[in-house]
Amino acid sequence: MTGEHSSKQYDTDLETIRSKVLLMGGLVESHFHDAMACFRSGNIVQAAAVIKSDEEVNRLEVALDDMCSHLIVKRQPAANDLRTVMATGKVITDLERIGDESTKIARIAHEAHARHKNIAMFSGYETVRVLASSVAEMLHQSLDAFARQDGDKALKLIAYDEIIDNDFRSIMRNLITFMMEDPSTISSSLDALWVAKAIERIGDHAKNIAEHTIYIVEGKDIRHSDYVATKQGTIASNS
Amino acid sequence: MTGEHSSKQYDTDLETIRSKVLLMGGLVESHFHDAMACFRSGNIVQAAAVIKSDEEVNRLEVALDDMCSHLIVKRQPAANDLRTVMATGKVITDLERIGDESTKIARIAHEAHARHKNIAMFSGYETVRVLASSVAEMLHQSLDAFARQDGDKALKLIAYDEIIDNDFRSIMRNLITFMMEDPSTISSSLDALWVAKAIERIGDHAKNIAEHTIYIVEGKDIRHSDYVATKQGTIASNS
Repeated sequence: MTGEHSSKQYDTDLETIRSKVLLMGGLVESHFHDAMACFRSGNIVQAAAVIKSDEEVNRLEVALDDMCSHLIVKRQPAANDLRTVMATGKVITDLERIGDESTKIARIAHEAHARHKNIAMFSGYETVRVLASSVAEMLHQSLDAFARQDGDKALKLIAYDEIIDNDFRSIMRNLITFMMEDPSTISSSLDALWVAKAIERIGDHAKNIAEHTIYIVEGKDIRHSDYVATKQGTIASNS
Repeated sequence: MTGEHSSKQYDTDLETIRSKVLLMGGLVESHFHDAMACFRSGNIVQAAAVIKSDEEVNRLEVALDDMCSHLIVKRQPAANDLRTVMATGKVITDLERIGDESTKIARIAHEAHARHKNIAMFSGYETVRVLASSVAEMLHQSLDAFARQDGDKALKLIAYDEIIDNDFRSIMRNLITFMMEDPSTISSSLDALWVAKAIERIGDHAKNIAEHTIYIVEGKDIRHSDYVATKQGTIASNS
């Protein structure tokens, strides 16, 4: 059994990990923001800096995974506490993947601007601008829900992911029409398409963070379940 | 400290988890195979079956995650053993993601064949056929390396992922040329492009499984490191 002293130590260690995860989250948010700025401006130097800074995110992932393992071995948490550590580990993985997607956006921005130096690029940015700002907000809110352990807020974000997916599909349809009308835009339209795809994936990871938060707060693994629909049905029928 | 009895129990429990992970691996391999068959044949009934069968993979993920947590709480493994459990947990996540990508392929096959019922689809399948078979082989070998805990084999697979990435880029260039030459193929070419992207991602996950295997065997976290280049340099200079 875990004594009071050990349990306090566990709390302190977990708090250290959580604050580092939030630090990583802030870093990842600003990378995403910078990557989108590169896609808008075509600033190749900034794009290279975003790509380079992903190394810091990767280092944080390895270090935090290690801290989680140490916490488990040293404090031998009970089932309840272990669940929190495991879910925090999954948040770390999602944050690293968001870093990967931002790096992809910076790389596409770099290549695209080297290839075409005309006005078509700006229309590419315009195509994805609204999606990017919705996803940036969703990511910010999911980190906030994780920080505050706010299950209700996390639940709302999961439903929001469907709106993001619909926006992505509508962008895709528009780009196909655009390419068909003017085949000379195919190459730059595909750049916008890959950027849109990367943004949509960041939305998926933000949704995952919300799911892990619910797991931590409510102790329910809601992945692949009808939990969201059921819970929202309950809220609706109570109101 | 972990006594001999408890350590034996740990081994038995871990072996149960490992064999279930390999079962999940086999399931995921056959889903990928079936999804590609749908993309070739346009069999809508089979596509629906592939999409449906992803639920089984999702259930396995949740159940196996749970088994890993129980193992840790009940057996309280030391640092070394915990590393194996954590890495096995990551293999489970990668397998579930492979299931997602196969489902995506089946979904694209379903939509594509409903949209265009002409010969252009078969050329779509031909475009990605070789990539799909390389990635299927890579996935099979990575599961084999995980099953046998063969670090050397896993190392070779990681290097192989670069070949897959190059093949993907070459498919992308070909499809762009194809679309530019005949804009009426844009829609079906994009189907092939998304399928190629899903296949390339399955390759990434197979590479991740190889990395987790090395972590289990060698106790080194080689993600984001120059481990592969260094190790292969050593092999080259010794031969």
